[in-house]
Amino acid sequence: MADASKGQSREGTAREGTSEQTASQGKGAQGIASREDFAQWYLDLVYKTGLADESPVRGCMVIRPYGYALWEHMVRLLDERIKATGHENVYFPLFIPRSFMEREAEHIEGFAPEVAVVTHAGGEELAEPLIVRPTSETIIGHMYAQWVHSYRDLPLLYNQWANVVRWEKRTRPFLRTTEFLWQEGHTVHRTEEEAEDETMLILQRVYQDFLEKELAIPVIAGRKSEGEKFAGALRTYSLEAMMGDGRALQCATSHNLGQNFAHSFNITFQDADGEVKHAWTTSWGASTRMIGGLIMTHGDDSGLRMPPRVAPIQAIIVPIWRKETEREAVAALVTEVEGALRAQGVRVRADWREERPGFKYNDWELRGVPIRIEIGPRDAQQGQVVLVPRTDRAAKQMISKDAVVQSVRKLLDDIQRMLYDQALAFRQRRTYQATSFDELRALMADRARLGFVEGWWCGDAACEATIKAETQATLRCLPLAQPTGSGACVGCGRPGTAWGVFAKAY
Amino acid sequence: MADASKGQSREGTAREGTSEQTASQGKGAQGIASREDFAQWYLDLVYKTGLADESPVRGCMVIRPYGYALWEHMVRLLDERIKATGHENVYFPLFIPRSFMEREAEHIEGFAPEVAVVTHAGGEELAEPLIVRPTSETIIGHMYAQWVHSYRDLPLLYNQWANVVRWEKRTRPFLRTTEFLWQEGHTVHRTEEEAEDETMLILQRVYQDFLEKELAIPVIAGRKSEGEKFAGALRTYSLEAMMGDGRALQCATSHNLGQNFAHSFNITFQDADGEVKHAWTTSWGASTRMIGGLIMTHGDDSGLRMPPRVAPIQAIIVPIWRKETEREAVAALVTEVEGALRAQGVRVRADWREERPGFKYNDWELRGVPIRIEIGPRDAQQGQVVLVPRTDRAAKQMISKDAVVQSVRKLLDDIQRMLYDQALAFRQRRTYQATSFDELRALMADRARLGFVEGWWCGDAACEATIKAETQATLRCLPLAQPTGSGACVGCGRPGTAWGVFAKAY
Repeated sequence: MADASKGQSREGTAREGTSEQTASQGKGAQGIASREDFAQWYLDLVYKTGLADESPVRGCMVIRPYGYALWEHMVRLLDERIKATGHENVYFPLFIPRSFMEREAEHIEGFAPEVAVVTHAGGEELAEPLIVRPTSETIIGHMYAQWVHSYRDLPLLYNQWANVVRWEKRTRPFLRTTEFLWQEGHTVHRTEEEAEDETMLILQRVYQDFLEKELAIPVIAGRKSEGEKFAGALRTYSLEAMMGDGRALQCATSHNLGQNFAHSFNITFQDADGEVKHAWTTSWGASTRMIGGLIMTHGDDSGLRMPPRVAPIQAIIVPIWRKETEREAVAALVTEVEGALRAQGVRVRADWREERPGFKYNDWELRGVPIRIEIGPRDAQQGQVVLVPRTDRAAKQMISKDAVVQSVRKLLDDIQRMLYDQALAFRQRRTYQATSFDELRALMADRARLGFVEGWWCGDAACEATIKAETQATLRCLPLAQPTGSGACVGCGRPGTAWGVFAKAY
Repeated sequence: MADASKGQSREGTAREGTSEQTASQGKGAQGIASREDFAQWYLDLVYKTGLADESPVRGCMVIRPYGYALWEHMVRLLDERIKATGHENVYFPLFIPRSFMEREAEHIEGFAPEVAVVTHAGGEELAEPLIVRPTSETIIGHMYAQWVHSYRDLPLLYNQWANVVRWEKRTRPFLRTTEFLWQEGHTVHRTEEEAEDETMLILQRVYQDFLEKELAIPVIAGRKSEGEKFAGALRTYSLEAMMGDGRALQCATSHNLGQNFAHSFNITFQDADGEVKHAWTTSWGASTRMIGGLIMTHGDDSGLRMPPRVAPIQAIIVPIWRKETEREAVAALVTEVEGALRAQGVRVRADWREERPGFKYNDWELRGVPIRIEIGPRDAQQGQVVLVPRTDRAAKQMISKDAVVQSVRKLLDDIQRMLYDQALAFRQRRTYQATSFDELRALMADRARLGFVEGWWCGDAACEATIKAETQATLRCLPLAQPTGSGACVGCGRPGTAWGVFAKAY
């Protein structure tokens, strides 16, 4: 783990300073800030667990082995779903000629303020500057125009895993970084209906399924308002999750781009009826930001809590011995248990560091390993081990070594479900319904109860802007599951046209 | 596959033009250039098989689904070896502050002419320009200095999968592109010996094993001369393969960086004896260039030949029917065979396009699918299929449907071995030993016999430069397996100090 003791570096110094500041605010046994100071607690969890480190490049982070292993499991499980729904992976260039970005007016308006620009290369000034991709609709649109000719070429269902760059003013590791890793899907369809079906397929069967089953993050699927949609989209859908401080995090988005990009890039095809038509396109993305969501959904005062399905280490074995004579018997059982678990696909590791068991318990709790397996001399003698779930230290159980694989597997499933259930219960507790602006404002002002506020909304962008200005809450989405009936808009009192979810957001 | 019929695009026009030019030079049934025109044959194999396409960004390509699927299999198999030898994956920023690049004098000298530079971001001119990484030793070195304090922190064994940018004057898809995908490993060690062991471990147990077993490309492991080593390295080792035209391709490199970067970035540690010492570092990389090597090692006049271990499609089923009544019986057997193969992990697909079987045979031969499975009405009736290996059409065999899984698996293994054996035999046929400069020059001037020339070398950079200037051949490497004895330098006739391999190179 990062040790800032050298203290020469900007990072080291900054972090040391921060630690000292918060020490008086009562750090726990783990040396991390209390969740009362949620922002500092978050940074402690990112930096002190070895997930990431700050880099010398403004707003860019370094993803360290523990964080990258987590990302690799996420990529694998999300990629499986993307492929299972008929998509293929491709790779497009990092650079986009500036003129391409400018072809879709709303798109460039949205992204222009935050692009990084290559002006010189190979020792010369470039005739046309190149944008480091903030997203790839434009360069992909250019290629699609060359690949699509007939309705028989459709649909094109492609995805790429890539890095993108957005020059953000305020950055935070994973949540908002200048450079981030993501996948971006880009598809072309014959009809509006097919494009809409694709947009929803990705939202629900790919992203929602992934977030809920693998990351144990319950999400609300909904449509974004006009003001919050993607620059250049017809309709944007998102998945919104509640973080541990009651704020919302947009976890993934899926856009029906209509014919906007098809018009700008001339993506046309000859239809079965002989007519040349503009195609319908979609795009959709999910990024390393989800790691921030995972941390803030499941973390507690002792540190991270990794959902077993994506945990880099699912079970950590802590051997306990005092005398060298004990060590040998303990080692034999540790090796046996480790081997049995690994053979059954459990990601297990034994911690043989020369440290006290208590130090190791804290360390692995901080890093959120789902199960700790303690093996001491008496256990070795009696052929048993102690299992301690990260989610509930008191639920420790002693089991025979022969039951260890079965018990660990069951416990991993239980922990996965428990994390989801706890997050869902928390969201439900912190979700309120408001019928007036006063109610909405009061709820948004109450830090201890902060959460999602549901209510009717009039559909007017001006009303949405007023709510945001006065409460800092944004309209997160109009959930796909809309209630029947109607009521007064929580913003302005006029008749509501859709049910919305409001929250302060990351 | 890309169809340039729209003809509006730069790419489309260029490619059409090229096709017309070479049509008169005798394209085969596949519509690709003969291997006599090796450069055009290569481009035809890249573009007409759907591996890649040109992009509107100078020197950058688009990797299409067939090419990216190949890359994914390569990544998986190489990543397994990297992890199995104790390395962990991480991710460092795309951008490198210019001052970092300048800290290692040889390094910046080597890379300065080919970097792309971000000068503006977020609407403002940057105080310090950012280099788009051409390789990451410098930014990683900066971070390692903060992570390494004690000998107990060593070794650091990290790798990253990333895109890098080098502004090359002359580009070719996969072989030399402005942006390319690769992995770059960066490790830190306590002693020179450990660093050298790491360098060799990667060269032989990771890269050579991967290239020979998975890509079926036989390689020569050797050390680079001072003139050919990596900018900033102490010693560079490479793996050299012979392409189908007798030229050499450097497939991967492994560098012992000595203490050069440790000095530039102050990577120091307190050793067990209490002394603060500079660490020893290594770096090593392999890229999408290997795809170019695969194409040029195994391709023939009918198109690609994919090594089964990495082939995106290992077996293609071509159903054959004339009447609709036949189609049904054929479809039943196709489905059965496809399901049986897929269940056993074979990457199989059935081609149900409305095209003649002959068209499909050509198409899949062009794309290099290792095995074709033909299933017609009589086969359906008799419960048999026809297997045709890509490597030898005449070796077609008729087998019972019950033997299909076993036969396909065995045939895939046979094809994998055969590709390697053929490539090795070709290299051996085209490898010569020279004892004088006249011999070397004559061999390098004979296009029909072009290959590797082995001989003694004096070790003098001036002699190496003369050989290059007069024959266009470079010293590819000094093989690890050195013969005993000695002889006169093939360049200058002075006493040889090492046995070298000379070749024209990509």
